[in-house]
Amino acid sequence: MHLLGENLTKHNLFVPKKHYGVLFETFILAEAEDGLYIIDQHTAHERIRYEEVLRDLKSKAYKSQSLLTPIRLELTREEAEEMIEERHRFLELGITLEPFSGGTILIREVPSYIDPGKETETILDLWERFKQKDPEERELYDEMAKCVACRSAIKKGDQVSDPIIGELLQRLSYCENPSLCPHGRPTLIKLTRKDLETMFHRI
Amino acid sequence: MHLLGENLTKHNLFVPKKHYGVLFETFILAEAEDGLYIIDQHTAHERIRYEEVLRDLKSKAYKSQSLLTPIRLELTREEAEEMIEERHRFLELGITLEPFSGGTILIREVPSYIDPGKETETILDLWERFKQKDPEERELYDEMAKCVACRSAIKKGDQVSDPIIGELLQRLSYCENPSLCPHGRPTLIKLTRKDLETMFHRI
Repeated sequence: MHLLGENLTKHNLFVPKKHYGVLFETFILAEAEDGLYIIDQHTAHERIRYEEVLRDLKSKAYKSQSLLTPIRLELTREEAEEMIEERHRFLELGITLEPFSGGTILIREVPSYIDPGKETETILDLWERFKQKDPEERELYDEMAKCVACRSAIKKGDQVSDPIIGELLQRLSYCENPSLCPHGRPTLIKLTRKDLETMFHRI
Repeated sequence: MHLLGENLTKHNLFVPKKHYGVLFETFILAEAEDGLYIIDQHTAHERIRYEEVLRDLKSKAYKSQSLLTPIRLELTREEAEEMIEERHRFLELGITLEPFSGGTILIREVPSYIDPGKETETILDLWERFKQKDPEERELYDEMAKCVACRSAIKKGDQVSDPIIGELLQRLSYCENPSLCPHGRPTLIKLTRKDLETMFHRI
């Protein structure tokens, strides 16, 4: 988990005050000024990582690192050739690809925003998304941010410690759009104090 | 708070597994087998006390105690006379009333189900309810149980300790009708696991 950047603005859409734990190892219960929030730990973390990676990409605020041992991608010869043709796109994302022999491609450099150990699957996921879209529809940074977010977010069923939940909620509160994951699924449900008081016939 | 009776049956309508604390000092968050429960601490406690008192009254499972110093009720002469005429009804509830002089009535004996210090207001509340109803519509035990429940239940805003919340939920799970307070207001709202997964587009 990354620490909160000092230069971020709080959007005041979701301002957590305290949290109560995780229901069914999936849903975080939190209190904010305006009500009870039920937060899906996976989609919320996806939203956070998505916005972080997108910001890093747009501002080039990441580093690429040469691998001591390059990662080998084993593909068909045809696919390897197609991918190498697009290597400049990968380079824009901080990924250096090099043709090797037959269907093998070497990944020489990877950017810091991809979690270590997730390089191959993230790059292949991006490549799959790339192939499914027309070249003019490909939003390079957006697609990459989605791939990374999906791979790096905590999952339903992952046990998350109390301080990590606190940090996750803080980071969610700094998101531009805290209420939807990058694929459009809800990250949170709000029951306002008024909703609750109405449901219980208190008003 | 009373301890759970050994002879009660669990109705399996609400089976709490754990609780997460109290939202806005009003709503208890709890997890059960079948979902998230949001519980109004006041109305839930009212339901518990109502069923307990009603059971005690029906089975005469309470004791009446003579007061060392009787409690004085100061009423108009007319009202005192009316109340004394109904003293046999109060006696059925374990309350001994005695005319004194003018508009004064002495409360000589009180039943154990009324919280100490709440005798006067509980008895006057019952009397008010009595006067508003036709004699044939008066359900003596039911009215009394409502009066006691209302007076003895914890309120919205009362700070309740963690073990007390646990006990309250346990006792609620033994109620015949855990989901409504004696006046018909909801005590709990359930979001099933399926509800939650649907809201978050997980199914």
